[in-house]
Amino acid sequence: MTKQPVFSQNFYNINENRHHIKTIGILGGGQLGQMLAQSVQALGMRCAFLDDAPNPPARLLGKVYTSEQFFEFASACDAYSFEFENTPTDFANHLQKHRHLAPNATTLHITQDRLNEKKLFQSLDILAARFFEIQSLDDLEAASDKLGLPLVLKTTKGGYDGKGQALIKTKAQLQVAWQTLGVHAPLIAEEFIEFEKEVSAIAVRAKNGDMRYYQLTQNIHEGGILIQSIHPAPNSQHLQQTAERYLQKIMTHLDYVGVLTLEMFVKNDMLIANEIAPRVHNSGHWSIEAAVCSQFENHMRAVADLPLGDTSTIGPSVMLNVIGQYPPLDKLLAMDGVHVHLYDKTPRPGRKLAHITIMPVDGSALLGTVDKVKALLCNEFAV
Amino acid sequence: MTKQPVFSQNFYNINENRHHIKTIGILGGGQLGQMLAQSVQALGMRCAFLDDAPNPPARLLGKVYTSEQFFEFASACDAYSFEFENTPTDFANHLQKHRHLAPNATTLHITQDRLNEKKLFQSLDILAARFFEIQSLDDLEAASDKLGLPLVLKTTKGGYDGKGQALIKTKAQLQVAWQTLGVHAPLIAEEFIEFEKEVSAIAVRAKNGDMRYYQLTQNIHEGGILIQSIHPAPNSQHLQQTAERYLQKIMTHLDYVGVLTLEMFVKNDMLIANEIAPRVHNSGHWSIEAAVCSQFENHMRAVADLPLGDTSTIGPSVMLNVIGQYPPLDKLLAMDGVHVHLYDKTPRPGRKLAHITIMPVDGSALLGTVDKVKALLCNEFAV
Repeated sequence: MTKQPVFSQNFYNINENRHHIKTIGILGGGQLGQMLAQSVQALGMRCAFLDDAPNPPARLLGKVYTSEQFFEFASACDAYSFEFENTPTDFANHLQKHRHLAPNATTLHITQDRLNEKKLFQSLDILAARFFEIQSLDDLEAASDKLGLPLVLKTTKGGYDGKGQALIKTKAQLQVAWQTLGVHAPLIAEEFIEFEKEVSAIAVRAKNGDMRYYQLTQNIHEGGILIQSIHPAPNSQHLQQTAERYLQKIMTHLDYVGVLTLEMFVKNDMLIANEIAPRVHNSGHWSIEAAVCSQFENHMRAVADLPLGDTSTIGPSVMLNVIGQYPPLDKLLAMDGVHVHLYDKTPRPGRKLAHITIMPVDGSALLGTVDKVKALLCNEFAV
Repeated sequence: MTKQPVFSQNFYNINENRHHIKTIGILGGGQLGQMLAQSVQALGMRCAFLDDAPNPPARLLGKVYTSEQFFEFASACDAYSFEFENTPTDFANHLQKHRHLAPNATTLHITQDRLNEKKLFQSLDILAARFFEIQSLDDLEAASDKLGLPLVLKTTKGGYDGKGQALIKTKAQLQVAWQTLGVHAPLIAEEFIEFEKEVSAIAVRAKNGDMRYYQLTQNIHEGGILIQSIHPAPNSQHLQQTAERYLQKIMTHLDYVGVLTLEMFVKNDMLIANEIAPRVHNSGHWSIEAAVCSQFENHMRAVADLPLGDTSTIGPSVMLNVIGQYPPLDKLLAMDGVHVHLYDKTPRPGRKLAHITIMPVDGSALLGTVDKVKALLCNEFAV
């Protein structure tokens, strides 16, 4: 395969003078792809995207290829990454074999299957909810005897933002849940964790094994969708070391390159691993303003084999998701320390349209401003 | 004139759902245009540019029109601004008459002529170097009697980065300077200010008259080119109020909308106005990382009639210009708190290729990191 110009000819004409320019191909052109591309414009890196949606958010930041144009996409860039863990493994395998793909295809293989993910936690001695593989209603009933109720029944593949799972509270609900989700078997039954709070830990790992960790972030979900992140997670400093040990184990084991997010529950002052996102994550959006080097820039630096940036927190911040409807931009911007990130999407109930990071220079104004921003949001969740 | 799509049809298809989207036309597509466009991508604003250069830095951020396509450009955007004070006044007048232009054409008329600018300072009681209009060698000799030597002889139009001016130290040099610059008469002869340091004051003004001020920045020039800015300017807090009064007078008088930069000398603890730049300025590049809302975003907010952002400083920073040659990107990025902004330009001696803002989260590491970055720069000035 030979490299082909992704942008205008003009762009490539001067390329020879700038040895450091890289074009990164991103599988997926959603808001994560959009922000990945925005984060490294100043470093001279460019992106192209693979996305079949009609108006992907990243469309103004680089050429968008459809799946039908995969082989063209696969020969157009210097290195590849993804913003979507359900990236077809065929594509990932091809890119890994013929080009440079980070994170690697093995990671995708594991994180695309909750069962594999749970087994990974187990093998690495990472505390996680107990679980059973479910192939039948009998399996589910046996699992409920061992795990007790409530339990959570989940599909092993697909599913995000709370889709593809059922909370089973009574024996009677076992059969109903099986009838709904059984078609997707094998399923996974997990112990229900009555957590005190949810946190996420984000780290970045370079090709040479260097690792850097962001401080923990607290996350608040509504209807399965993240609506708010608080960074740094309050009263969680003592959990940071454990979180970093978990990340270090997982990322070293996977020979991971790029940003990885580990979502966890906190219960009785212990971290319980829930899910790996092998990518930049909604719970790290605060890092654009509130970290020295954002999760987006750090991911791209890792993919392009550049040194990692400082993950230190500049100041406390709160991130709010905008769901379903756009709030009035002029009212938001009238408040100091309010940073708005629009995703160029058509509004639809339940759809993440934008996020807002609040970080006033005077930290004591943070919570007051958050309340004022919340009063302007008219989040609409899908039914 | 009717509005025409600047970007892909896809982009405009969804436009109707987002009333706040604005396309801003920028006269000039250099690094300032590039950074103006980058600063408001997340706010859903888009840019188009008017530039005749073959590979303007802003070319990947929006459509670039040539002067020949001016009327097409002039009907494509919602509002207009410029990044280059030598914008042809015909273009500015047309845009002001038929569309929305900010800052206004009157401002350009004044700042394009040093004589007008000096008269403005005078009329507003702003301390500035004494000056005389020079139409002949006789005028120049008379001026040198009144101002003493050394004096500075400057063209009234054009000239930047130290071009179009001569420092006259001896009577004998008067004639030489006149022979060189006289062809551009009328000229201006200015008192030579033996300043202690140079600072710049940047402010933004909204359509409704709201104003916000950035803290003073200290600037260091070499061969007439800015090479370093230090923000906030050390030991200058007591000058802030005077700087703001000057900015307030100038911007109110001009009914100015957008960001304006006032370059000044400091001598005997007094501010002496030197030059107005009716635009975002190299000495405000630190604000991308080190202010809550950067000069670029604030300028675009003002042009789009959105509320102004907080101009507060987040932490001390130093900005270094990269001139003539690119330093090794990997070595720069290996240092914490080093932010690199490349302008997508072909290297050439004396050409500004990039800037680097240094703001480690630990302020005590600032000067050490600045020294390490300087050691990597191989700035080449034109002869």
